[in-house]
Amino acid sequence: MIKDYIQTNEARMLEELFSLIRIPSISSEHEHKADMLKCAERWRELLLAAGADKAEVMPSEGNPMVYAEKIVNPEAQTVLVYGHYDVMPVEPIELWKSDPFEPEVRDGHIFARGADDDKGQSFIQAKAFEYLVKNNLLTHNVKFILEGEEEIGSPSLEAFCKTHSELLKADIILVSDTSMLSADLPSLTTGLRGLSYWQVEVTGPNRDLHSGHFGGAVMNPINALCKMIAQITDESGKITVPGFYDKVEDLSPEERAMIAQIPFDEEKYKQSIGITDVFGETGYSTIERNSCRPAFDCCGIWGGYTGEGAKTVIPSKAYAKISTRLVPHQNSEEIGALVAAHLQCIAPKGVTVKVDYLHGGEGYVCPISHPAYRAAEKGFEQAFGKRPLPVRRGGSIPIIATFEQVLGVKTILMGFGLESNAIHSPNENFPLHMLRKGIEAVVGFHLAL
Amino acid sequence: MIKDYIQTNEARMLEELFSLIRIPSISSEHEHKADMLKCAERWRELLLAAGADKAEVMPSEGNPMVYAEKIVNPEAQTVLVYGHYDVMPVEPIELWKSDPFEPEVRDGHIFARGADDDKGQSFIQAKAFEYLVKNNLLTHNVKFILEGEEEIGSPSLEAFCKTHSELLKADIILVSDTSMLSADLPSLTTGLRGLSYWQVEVTGPNRDLHSGHFGGAVMNPINALCKMIAQITDESGKITVPGFYDKVEDLSPEERAMIAQIPFDEEKYKQSIGITDVFGETGYSTIERNSCRPAFDCCGIWGGYTGEGAKTVIPSKAYAKISTRLVPHQNSEEIGALVAAHLQCIAPKGVTVKVDYLHGGEGYVCPISHPAYRAAEKGFEQAFGKRPLPVRRGGSIPIIATFEQVLGVKTILMGFGLESNAIHSPNENFPLHMLRKGIEAVVGFHLAL
Repeated sequence: MIKDYIQTNEARMLEELFSLIRIPSISSEHEHKADMLKCAERWRELLLAAGADKAEVMPSEGNPMVYAEKIVNPEAQTVLVYGHYDVMPVEPIELWKSDPFEPEVRDGHIFARGADDDKGQSFIQAKAFEYLVKNNLLTHNVKFILEGEEEIGSPSLEAFCKTHSELLKADIILVSDTSMLSADLPSLTTGLRGLSYWQVEVTGPNRDLHSGHFGGAVMNPINALCKMIAQITDESGKITVPGFYDKVEDLSPEERAMIAQIPFDEEKYKQSIGITDVFGETGYSTIERNSCRPAFDCCGIWGGYTGEGAKTVIPSKAYAKISTRLVPHQNSEEIGALVAAHLQCIAPKGVTVKVDYLHGGEGYVCPISHPAYRAAEKGFEQAFGKRPLPVRRGGSIPIIATFEQVLGVKTILMGFGLESNAIHSPNENFPLHMLRKGIEAVVGFHLAL
Repeated sequence: MIKDYIQTNEARMLEELFSLIRIPSISSEHEHKADMLKCAERWRELLLAAGADKAEVMPSEGNPMVYAEKIVNPEAQTVLVYGHYDVMPVEPIELWKSDPFEPEVRDGHIFARGADDDKGQSFIQAKAFEYLVKNNLLTHNVKFILEGEEEIGSPSLEAFCKTHSELLKADIILVSDTSMLSADLPSLTTGLRGLSYWQVEVTGPNRDLHSGHFGGAVMNPINALCKMIAQITDESGKITVPGFYDKVEDLSPEERAMIAQIPFDEEKYKQSIGITDVFGETGYSTIERNSCRPAFDCCGIWGGYTGEGAKTVIPSKAYAKISTRLVPHQNSEEIGALVAAHLQCIAPKGVTVKVDYLHGGEGYVCPISHPAYRAAEKGFEQAFGKRPLPVRRGGSIPIIATFEQVLGVKTILMGFGLESNAIHSPNENFPLHMLRKGIEAVVGFHLAL
């Protein structure tokens, strides 16, 4: 029984997971370049030990890929497990209660960067695979592909898939990188939002100016940047960029009715993130707003004097990182160009604006009638004792849409995250009981397939 | 002759000035606390050597004061020279062509933080004084007061003046901390703007959130902050805070006519700071906008992810440092409260806003009929061969208004700065020929008084 297997092997399993977490594989920071290879190598070792016939670290245009496979029967169907070994930066570091790269178990949760996203969740896939191999229960083939650039938009994966389409050939893709509604509301993700992400640089005067001598007579680049960002959304929460909603798929009354049935306590939601009011597009519920409708967020802003006390300066430059979440049918590159052009259009006189498109990806929808979706439902039912709800989520895994385009294969999103896991935030964590149930559910999926 | 004196002594004088500049007396940064005392001590030594009867470093509520005096005749009138020995931070350090605290002479300019503001300019006063003492030309008394907190709003000077009003008793105050229109357009500053300065903190969720999972459903604190800052000014460059203009003194037609006669080349102005268009309040000229009308500037902004690449985050907090320049009759504390209340009023739902008033000060106007103003005119005429133009400037030296309130004395602003001196900016500098002419002009002032 899988439960017994987990109990017997848990100490070793945790040490294996911790060995992955301890490598600070932050893909967005150049100084961690060597850690990327180190983490890929460690995954290769672990997948071999788990029972793969072969496992390799393969070069890509960017960080290396980890590929592994267990071919039990060339005639049988093949499941391709996708995950990523890179993690988000840890800032603001001062808010972490323990070292982000030294996992600590407190109150039954593993605290560390990557404990959930996506080292913890990918590890669930590896351990379910290990159980099936060690007990000779695998009747189909399993392949693994782990990349090291998911958090920076998977810039190399599409080309890698195209080059290695034969190697990656599969009937279904399985991914653990999403969340459930809550610990007692198991759910399967049937849709994801797309993403476009830009960096904006506003330049005013050719040097920082004394705000007393020049204030009132020149356009201040921070003032200008704020005016531009402020205009991107209106008071009803709508994005004002012309053409932005042209391809947005309207939610059908049926879908809205299904969404309305998802148990959701808005007061609890507000409490859990410490806000007094929700805010979003007029006419939509919170769940619709954060999963089925587009959104605009400024993810970072900086310029001028940010130290202690006061400095009276009109800075030469101001910067922002801005992003939109997109819904199915919106094209990330089209939106990328649309927003960049609009920013130039609304730039105040007296400043110049440079917009760099950093990355993007498309949304995704998976039909709930797919046999692999049904197998995933069974796995969840066995582990959680409940049939999981199909839900669309607000996050983006652009590569899921790319897999469909390049490999022609649908993806099943068996995610075991919880909102309280604080991914991308300080004190990211993963509950041990979700690690156990996750392994049970994935074993159930494979057995039901 | 003063010209000969300067020539003979220039090498020593420069070494003295450099010894002041080499002490990084940045008042806004706590780690420079010890440098403040060091710089004050160095000034004390130099003023004694220049000919003061006595010179002392005196405690204040904040950084120490330097006081010195030469009493030639208790019955004669007294000139109180005010200056400051603290300097601005040096960020962005990477734009400096030489170490900001190791003065370097290039093309006849001294490059260093404080070369102009205000170590260089205060030094002019000290060297003019030295010449007069060494040559027995002083027929009135001279006192010096140098503070170490001007760049952070002189928080201790008012209390110090109140406590030491007898010591500081004077008939006129003389300050070199302002600029001339240009090297060949000598001018005397007859008015200054006031200032109010705040730090704004916007808090949204209690932790950084994943922008995919939450984007569209919660108010993003950066979006909120941008909307608030954007609203403070309208499209015609007017400040929208209710009541803001209530006490603004309208410019008289006579004053506007006088301002219109100041030679000003807008194309050159734009070129010198590298902008394509000026921007400001509709209906006013550039000179009016930057000296006689209020202004709103965001001097710094920060929040969210500001590192390399992309992080998809809704930050918990966003911050800005904002300031307004005020004109005579506006009260800095009243405006302080007005803007703070308005920010609360326009804060979007779903975020909380904290506004800290960092500091402020009042504007100032000096009548051009004052005998000491006439003496300053003569000093300038002798040094520059031209009668200086009376002009109002956009900067703030709040203590000038305080001197008038507390000590009951008018101030003459004999400033020798140039726009190209880049005060508060990287590569601050001071031309050697202005140092020489400045000393000549101040000597002329004393002899004409």
